[in-house]
Amino acid sequence: MNEILQKTERTRLRRAHKRGAFDRQTVNAILDAQPLCHIAYVIEGSPIAMPSVQWREGNHVYWHASSAGRGIRAVSEQDVCLTVSILDGMVLARSAMHHSVNYRSAMIFGRPRVIEDADVKKEKLGNLIDVLYPGRNAILRPMTDQELKATAVVSMPIEEASAKIRSGGPVDDEEDYRLAIWAGVLPVTTSVGAPVSDPRNTDGVSPPDHAIHFKLG
Amino acid sequence: MNEILQKTERTRLRRAHKRGAFDRQTVNAILDAQPLCHIAYVIEGSPIAMPSVQWREGNHVYWHASSAGRGIRAVSEQDVCLTVSILDGMVLARSAMHHSVNYRSAMIFGRPRVIEDADVKKEKLGNLIDVLYPGRNAILRPMTDQELKATAVVSMPIEEASAKIRSGGPVDDEEDYRLAIWAGVLPVTTSVGAPVSDPRNTDGVSPPDHAIHFKLG
Repeated sequence: MNEILQKTERTRLRRAHKRGAFDRQTVNAILDAQPLCHIAYVIEGSPIAMPSVQWREGNHVYWHASSAGRGIRAVSEQDVCLTVSILDGMVLARSAMHHSVNYRSAMIFGRPRVIEDADVKKEKLGNLIDVLYPGRNAILRPMTDQELKATAVVSMPIEEASAKIRSGGPVDDEEDYRLAIWAGVLPVTTSVGAPVSDPRNTDGVSPPDHAIHFKLG
Repeated sequence: MNEILQKTERTRLRRAHKRGAFDRQTVNAILDAQPLCHIAYVIEGSPIAMPSVQWREGNHVYWHASSAGRGIRAVSEQDVCLTVSILDGMVLARSAMHHSVNYRSAMIFGRPRVIEDADVKKEKLGNLIDVLYPGRNAILRPMTDQELKATAVVSMPIEEASAKIRSGGPVDDEEDYRLAIWAGVLPVTTSVGAPVSDPRNTDGVSPPDHAIHFKLG
């Protein structure tokens, strides 16, 4: 069942309303398509857009960071904004102003929660691996307590969230369509190449399905 | 001539120092490879990571927005952080903790300046087109005063800036290399497809070189 997310002052769109989407399925699909995200927060008085890797479990989004870092202290004490944006195309129009890009973007606002329980943290880090590479966590060398201590895991509910999507061709002023100017779209896609094996892999080891079938975008 | 950018409290790296780069050429190359950026600023008390399209001219980075928007007022009154991140690969290691991603990321801190002069603004918006699509601005229907008024252009010096790059294969704990676990890299690339012409193009118009040869990543 899809669910409509409640609009707030932070998520309602001021511009380009028709590009907005406020349902959970649309937001989830964008998060699931691209692990690279940018998290905005204020650190020592300055806003920062920090790239990170996010993963989703149900109605929560997760990321991790060094336990010793300034970032993890900062995000546990303030609301943040996590954005995932995927560029899908360059849109070339007949006037400069109608040039655009096709994209899918999801934005989640909220107060992150640092996961303190060691067992839950271990489970979540295993999920990070398995969300990206199904079945991989079970075949890895197990995490040590030391590694677990060094890593902080953060979760945020996907509640105050919205998506914005532009797709399709250029939309020009009606009188400009008669001009002999090429207009159109340059499609942009994210491709994953064939797995490149580490030269130090042991003999006879070959790429598993989760490496061969990994997809992005 | 390459130039080393001065480190500040905001740009010096706390972690993974060997991945840091503080020279202008490295920062510029990342900005030039990917127009999609995220700009962090505080709006009505909340940090936001806003996706946008940036372009570079010399030692400045530019972006544009609606003149009427809240964002443009906000960024002219505070320091912001503009980040461009490019995902280059997924790195699969023999333990969960050594999984990583290959990436190139550039971060610029500073106080944006809104360009007020109409002629300069017009020139800059023309440059946005030509930086992405060399020679295109001259063939477009000229900008109207109305369009110019509706658009705000913002510039920021590329001074307080840094880059962070990870490349190469997994780096595992020495004792884990004997394990029969596949490790390696899944290369991620951004591809631009063949131009898709707008069905409303006039007869005989074909994609120009700037559309055919457009590259990203």
